[in-house]
This record gives sequence, structure tokens and C-alpha cells, in this order.
Amino acid sequence: MFKQPSIIHESAIIGAGTKIWAFSHVCENAVIGENCVIGEGVHIGPGVVIGDNCKIQNHALLYTGVTIGNRVFIGPNVVTTNDIDPQACGDWSERFRKTIIADDVAIGANSTILCGITIERGCRIGCGSLITKDCKAWHRYYNPNTQALQMAEMTTPTNGTIRIEP
Amino acid sequence: MFKQPSIIHESAIIGAGTKIWAFSHVCENAVIGENCVIGEGVHIGPGVVIGDNCKIQNHALLYTGVTIGNRVFIGPNVVTTNDIDPQACGDWSERFRKTIIADDVAIGANSTILCGITIERGCRIGCGSLITKDCKAWHRYYNPNTQALQMAEMTTPTNGTIRIEP
Amino acid sequence: MFKQPSIIHESAIIGAGTKIWAFSHVCENAVIGENCVIGEGVHIGPGVVIGDNCKIQNHALLYTGVTIGNRVFIGPNVVTTNDIDPQACGDWSERFRKTIIADDVAIGANSTILCGITIERGCRIGCGSLITKDCKAWHRYYNPNTQALQMAEMTTPTNGTIRIEP
Repeated sequence: MFKQPSIIHESAIIGAGTKIWAFSHVCENAVIGENCVIGEGVHIGPGVVIGDNCKIQNHALLYTGVTIGNRVFIGPNVVTTNDIDPQACGDWSERFRKTIIADDVAIGANSTILCGITIERGCRIGCGSLITKDCKAWHRYYNPNTQALQMAEMTTPTNGTIRIEP
Repeated sequence: MFKQPSIIHESAIIGAGTKIWAFSHVCENAVIGENCVIGEGVHIGPGVVIGDNCKIQNHALLYTGVTIGNRVFIGPNVVTTNDIDPQACGDWSERFRKTIIADDVAIGANSTILCGITIERGCRIGCGSLITKDCKAWHRYYNPNTQALQMAEMTTPTNGTIRIEP
Repeated sequence: MFKQPSIIHESAIIGAGTKIWAFSHVCENAVIGENCVIGEGVHIGPGVVIGDNCKIQNHALLYTGVTIGNRVFIGPNVVTTNDIDPQACGDWSERFRKTIIADDVAIGANSTILCGITIERGCRIGCGSLITKDCKAWHRYYNPNTQALQMAEMTTPTNGTIRIEP
């Protein structure tokens, strides 16, 4: 048993009633509202702003430049970005873009949000989405292609080995 | 060097020979069988049941409502879900769905499993899949669209800067 | 406040000026060059080689068999693999494949790299990609399907409940 090893920078502001689980990191000057739940292994970058009554699920990565409204659901493994064309070296200040996630938005697990984007109020984003454009208020977005996985039959295994028919 | 800071709830049952790596969290009333390997940063939610001889890879997130059989491979960053339409606020008990992952299933890295789904015995799910429907026994599923990434040529860099032809 | 609980194996070689953030694990015989930044919750498997001046973002999982050049950007939640058809049990040595990520490559967030692949110098991989084939030098790859999320209108909420029109 290990006691909640989270890292919360002393300059971060955390609202009353907000709970932060283990292995998370809240960076300098981040602001989190009241009655939020911040899951495990979450990264909240410098200066990120999160409103009240949000749920930020496990392993979500919210980078500098993101502003999140009230009553927002951020699913597990969701990543926001802030560089339109990242590289390992050099100045990237001209590639930095902000992202706005408005009130009442819900973003499904394992989704990726490109930067410079506004997700308007009440949007619902399906799991496994890659958001590349602004999303209109009170609309639902999902990737139709992922609904149609291709299927191939396998022969039943013998001796614990599964053979695949080509 | 840091000694294995995992969090294992005292009510969880862990079978003989099972190894749990660092930064993981096994919640209350979870049951894990024998000879499993649970990777780093894994979340095993309250009441989750996992059989024997499973490999749960790093950062897999297995939420309440999931039952996993024997000899199952769960790839890195795989997420299961348990809410058909998540929101940050309010009662969600009517949206809760269970998920069954049967014996001998293998799920590739970065896949997302919607809830209310049964993945039957011996299925193999390709990396980066979004599973939205039941999967038949001894079949292989993968996303054909992801095989066809689009390609655009870039000019070679000068002075360490990469210029992209529009 | 919690002091950097990372796990670095004593046999790993870490170059001068390289910084490793919290909750990360550098395994035995891994070699990391100079002036790299290794984010939070990163896994660097046994024998993985990383060059100089790389940025490995949060929660990237780099498994045994991967060789990474200089000035490489690995985005958050990126996963490399090393087994062409993983299963929980049995010998997998014949399924092991190496992966090469050459100098100046940048891989976007939440991408998955199948194994046995070479990503040649200067490639840029868009966020949320599944890389299944070799990538040619100085080319850009992205998934065209993910640009076209499907959209469905919702009615505005009443009493805090969002109703979806079927």
C-alpha cells in the first residue's frame, strides 16, 4: 500500500472538494475548479485552466494552452496537444496553438485533440477519435470508419497455438 | 531508484505467482488469478475479475464491469469503458454496461473497447482498434483504414528547419 | 509534493544533460543519449537505444527492439510494439521484430507503431496514426479517415440531461 504519490506544484490552485488520485502531476499555475475528480496518472500542464465539476479520467494528458469549462468529462488516455507540427529541437513558439473545451463537453477514451481547436458547448466526442477541426455546440462526433473493423477467420488452436488462415 | 510504488487495495485478491509492476493501482474487490503479469501504470477497477496466466501490459485501464478470462493478452494503453455515453455530472447507473473478454483473447496496443460488448474466445484484435460490437470466437479483427495512411512529400531541411510543400 | 519517483535501472546509461520526469521506468541496458527530455510515465524497455537531443513525451511506451536516432520527437501516449501477433502464453521469440526510428523523425500523440518497421529520416507521423509499413524519408504520413468524423445533432439539454435524437 502506497500513499497517493501525486505531484502538485505549490503555485497551482485547486478548488474545494476536488480530489486528485495517485501518480498525477499538476504543474505550475494550473487552476482547477471545485468538486472535480482528477484520475490517476493525469498530467495537467503549466497554466491549464479547468472549471468546476469536471471529471478528468485516468492518464489524460492536458497540455499548456488548454482551457476547459465546467462539467466537462475527459475520458481515459485523452491527449490534447499544443504544437501544430512538433519537432524535438528548436524554437516552437510560432507553432503553439490554444485549445478551448467548453462547458458540458464529453470526450471519449483514447481520443486525441489537435491544437488550435474549439470544442463548443455540449459536444460529445466518441471514443478513439482524432479531432482535427472545430466541433459545433450540442453535436455528437464519432469516427465512422472505426465502426467497420475487418474480420478474418482463424482456425481453432491446437497445442495452444493459434493458426491463422491466410 | 524507487521501490515499486504500486497501490493494491487490501480487499483485492491476487493469485499466486502474479507480479504487479510499479505505478499500478488494483482497486477494492478486484480479483486477479494466478501467474499473471500486470504491467506499469495499470488501473484495475473495483470488482474487476481477471483469470489465470494473463498479461496486462503497461498503462492498460480496466474499469469496473470487465471480466477477463484465462490466458488473455491486454496490450499497452488498452482502455475498456463502462458508460455508454459518459457525462461529468449526475447519475449514470442506467448507462453502465458490462464487458466480457473471454479466454485466449489478445487485444493489440492502444485499442479501445466500448462497453456492453463480448469478445469471444480466442479473438485477436489488431493494434489501434476501436471495438464497437461483439467479436466472434477465433476471429481476427483489425481496422482496414489505418493500413492506408496518406503520404505527402516534404522538402529536405535547411538549417535544421523542415519545410513542408503545401 | 513528491520527489521524482522514477525507476532507473543501474545498468542503464543516461547521457549528460538528459532529464527524466516522474513515474518513468528506464530498464536494464537501455541507452539514452545527451540532452534528451524523457517525460512522465514513460517506459523505456531493456536494451532500447535513444540518441541525442530527443524528446520523449509523457506516457510513451518504448519496448525492447526499438532503436531511436537523434533529434527524434515521440509524442505523448505513443506505443511501439515488438511482437507481430502477441499472446499471453508461450514462447514468442519467433514473433519478435525490431523497429528503427531514424534521425529527425516526429511521431504525433497517441500513435501506435507496429514492429519490424523502419521509419526513415525526417518522417512526420500525424497524431492518432497506426503505422503498419515502412515510412519513407522526409515524408509526412497521416490517416485521412480520421479527418472526417461523422456528426449527429443533439437536442439542447433540459434539467441537465442531454437527449440525443436518434
